[in-house]
Amino acid sequence: MNKTHKPQPPKGFRDYFGPEARLRKRVISVFQSVFESYGYEPLETPAMEYAETILGKYGPEAEKLVYQLEDFGGRKLALKYEMTASACRFVAQNYQKLIFPFKRYQIQPAWRAENPQKGRLREFIQCDADVWGVKSMVIDAEFIEMGTLAMEKLGFKDFVTKINNRKIINAIAKYAGASQNQFYDITVSIDKLAKIGKEGVKLELKKRGIPDRVAEKVLTITSLQGEPKKLLSEIKKMLAGYKEGIEGIKELEEIFAILEKSDFNQRCFRFDPSVVRGLAYYTGPVWEIEIIEGGVGSVAGCGRFDTLTKMLSGIDIPASGGSFGIERICEVLKDRKMVEIPNSVTKVLITVFSPNLASKSREIARKLRSLEINTEVFADPQTKLDKQIKYADKKGIPFVLVIGPEEIAKNLVTLKNLATGEQKTEILEKTIALLK
Amino acid sequence: MNKTHKPQPPKGFRDYFGPEARLRKRVISVFQSVFESYGYEPLETPAMEYAETILGKYGPEAEKLVYQLEDFGGRKLALKYEMTASACRFVAQNYQKLIFPFKRYQIQPAWRAENPQKGRLREFIQCDADVWGVKSMVIDAEFIEMGTLAMEKLGFKDFVTKINNRKIINAIAKYAGASQNQFYDITVSIDKLAKIGKEGVKLELKKRGIPDRVAEKVLTITSLQGEPKKLLSEIKKMLAGYKEGIEGIKELEEIFAILEKSDFNQRCFRFDPSVVRGLAYYTGPVWEIEIIEGGVGSVAGCGRFDTLTKMLSGIDIPASGGSFGIERICEVLKDRKMVEIPNSVTKVLITVFSPNLASKSREIARKLRSLEINTEVFADPQTKLDKQIKYADKKGIPFVLVIGPEEIAKNLVTLKNLATGEQKTEILEKTIALLK
Repeated sequence: MNKTHKPQPPKGFRDYFGPEARLRKRVISVFQSVFESYGYEPLETPAMEYAETILGKYGPEAEKLVYQLEDFGGRKLALKYEMTASACRFVAQNYQKLIFPFKRYQIQPAWRAENPQKGRLREFIQCDADVWGVKSMVIDAEFIEMGTLAMEKLGFKDFVTKINNRKIINAIAKYAGASQNQFYDITVSIDKLAKIGKEGVKLELKKRGIPDRVAEKVLTITSLQGEPKKLLSEIKKMLAGYKEGIEGIKELEEIFAILEKSDFNQRCFRFDPSVVRGLAYYTGPVWEIEIIEGGVGSVAGCGRFDTLTKMLSGIDIPASGGSFGIERICEVLKDRKMVEIPNSVTKVLITVFSPNLASKSREIARKLRSLEINTEVFADPQTKLDKQIKYADKKGIPFVLVIGPEEIAKNLVTLKNLATGEQKTEILEKTIALLK
Repeated sequence: MNKTHKPQPPKGFRDYFGPEARLRKRVISVFQSVFESYGYEPLETPAMEYAETILGKYGPEAEKLVYQLEDFGGRKLALKYEMTASACRFVAQNYQKLIFPFKRYQIQPAWRAENPQKGRLREFIQCDADVWGVKSMVIDAEFIEMGTLAMEKLGFKDFVTKINNRKIINAIAKYAGASQNQFYDITVSIDKLAKIGKEGVKLELKKRGIPDRVAEKVLTITSLQGEPKKLLSEIKKMLAGYKEGIEGIKELEEIFAILEKSDFNQRCFRFDPSVVRGLAYYTGPVWEIEIIEGGVGSVAGCGRFDTLTKMLSGIDIPASGGSFGIERICEVLKDRKMVEIPNSVTKVLITVFSPNLASKSREIARKLRSLEINTEVFADPQTKLDKQIKYADKKGIPFVLVIGPEEIAKNLVTLKNLATGEQKTEILEKTIALLK
């Protein structure tokens, strides 16, 4: 960087510092402990993979957004666009060693060269958990339960998991008279229902050459609402002649039967025939978590991908799981003031009265730290006391501990609460009790 | 990935799974809590920076190892080679907003296209903490204290922080009769003393064209050993005529005086005039932490870099700090069996006797999880009981909980300890007490 160059991160990237970084860490640790409580093991894969592991999976539009670079031997590499391709590569590579069902979670950054005008960042944390080797819907239901638990632990109350099945969408399209090659256009358009509304989707379908009567029928069914069991049985009747549809309905019936027996509020679970999820590789149930108030939209995208591992590696193994949006969750927590993240990681600043008394300040600091009280000693012993206190105040450190010659003579310390201005001179033990 | 391509991470990269990933997380969390206990705030910067932020800082040899790529607007980007350049960019960018002294820690991956033959990985975690805005040696001493605390918390007993000062090395070189343009060759060679021994360094210095008498003198002084105060005063006499040397000695005297008053074992701190640290940007005290037994070498490299931020951004601000080698520390902990990382994150597997009893298994699982006992329910309710138990055994899950019709009728559960084979049928509350 030359001196005239403005110091900044690359376009579309940002830094996280202090309270913002601590909020991210806290949210991540909630997911980590919830995933581990269900027996998911952590996996970390490299930031980059051989290009052939990444490319050819997400469709041409998405593929343009993959960051590519070259190995020093001239081999093509790509930064991770998401976690699943990398995880499937790991599963395939270690297939003989792994014990199935294989459950792993992975909380790592991914990179997409999104147009920054959309307000999307080019680097973001993916927070994934997936299971390989289970065909049973039990694992999909367990995942939905796990996501609900994580959201509750984060403090959310107004959220819902909207559940659908790709098999049902396909059958609805067929039932409505669409041909196989129109399925893609239909799912892509329906995916936008929440964003652009019924009329918007109608227009979109028209543009994509879907006949009006097909569009009308698809929209009518996917817009149906109701209590899960009731709505499932209603749609089941319509799709009676469509084997794939009936299969999808049965899978959801199984999932809802399990969720019904959980002790979560049943309003957290909804059958929503309009849920699609963007990625092409889903094969069965798909679901997303939506925060209801405030138009935040989906904070988790999940589903079953029984054919992806085979596509990636030749190994035929079913899989299911999902991904939580850490950045979006952090934003909502912050905007709604749902968590209290102090401005400073430090609880107390110990001032240094004079260079020759500094060692006393440091001695007390070590004691406080050993009691898990985050403690700073003012770094420059030549600085005047009022400037030291001003530093604490500006940084948002709540307490200042003053140890001057008078205090030392009497074996006391003075604790100042910067928020209230209150000040107390006491023996150290009493002050510690106050700080804890 | 086509089906014939062997699934693997790129050359020089690796995955971390299960116990290995958990060990890393645990080591990182020790550093995080120690850093925070001293008031360091977390910072996360993007994986990449504009190339001009990264390049031109590490010397031509190192620069070859920087991964470069292009933005979609054609701007040159580079993956982080280490954390300090990125952090200095952050400090410069936010100079008006930040409160000084500015303390930040940063635990993120960095990338170097090292030759994999060296056994070095191309992706590794950097675990850094640094302070900007303090000239006083107090902060260097505090950092050494902090590193000692972290090593103790990790369970290490046989380690030493070897402390030197770039100013002393320069003065020794001058004293030995070297000219300014020979300083670089001398420091680079001395840096290898621990690795290649005195004779090796002599040869290296010869090759670099340093006269024998200079080499001899430099080697004699840098090989001196002794109690810090004594050795400092001994070298002080030699360097009496060299202002920079005396300054360096005074700085170390100040640091050792502070360390002496700490309650750490004084054998943890050593003045070692042969310590150099590779990076060119150090300007004052430099120190490294060495694990004594087993030839593990240095696990932390630290020092003062008062001119780097100016070089990077034009803002003249002193700084000091260091970097801990997470991978190397994890290796030693593992090799020496210093930590017990269970094979499985799961404490107990609850078996599913039959599909219609699965909801009972799940109910008990939810209860255990709420008590912070990591619990799996076997995913496929169609699998035979002995196969379910075998799964737990292979995965290293220590306990299996069996809930069959008999147990349910009597409101009991059967807990099996897979290590001992012991088995007990009791009420759930008693079993929970056993598991906790």
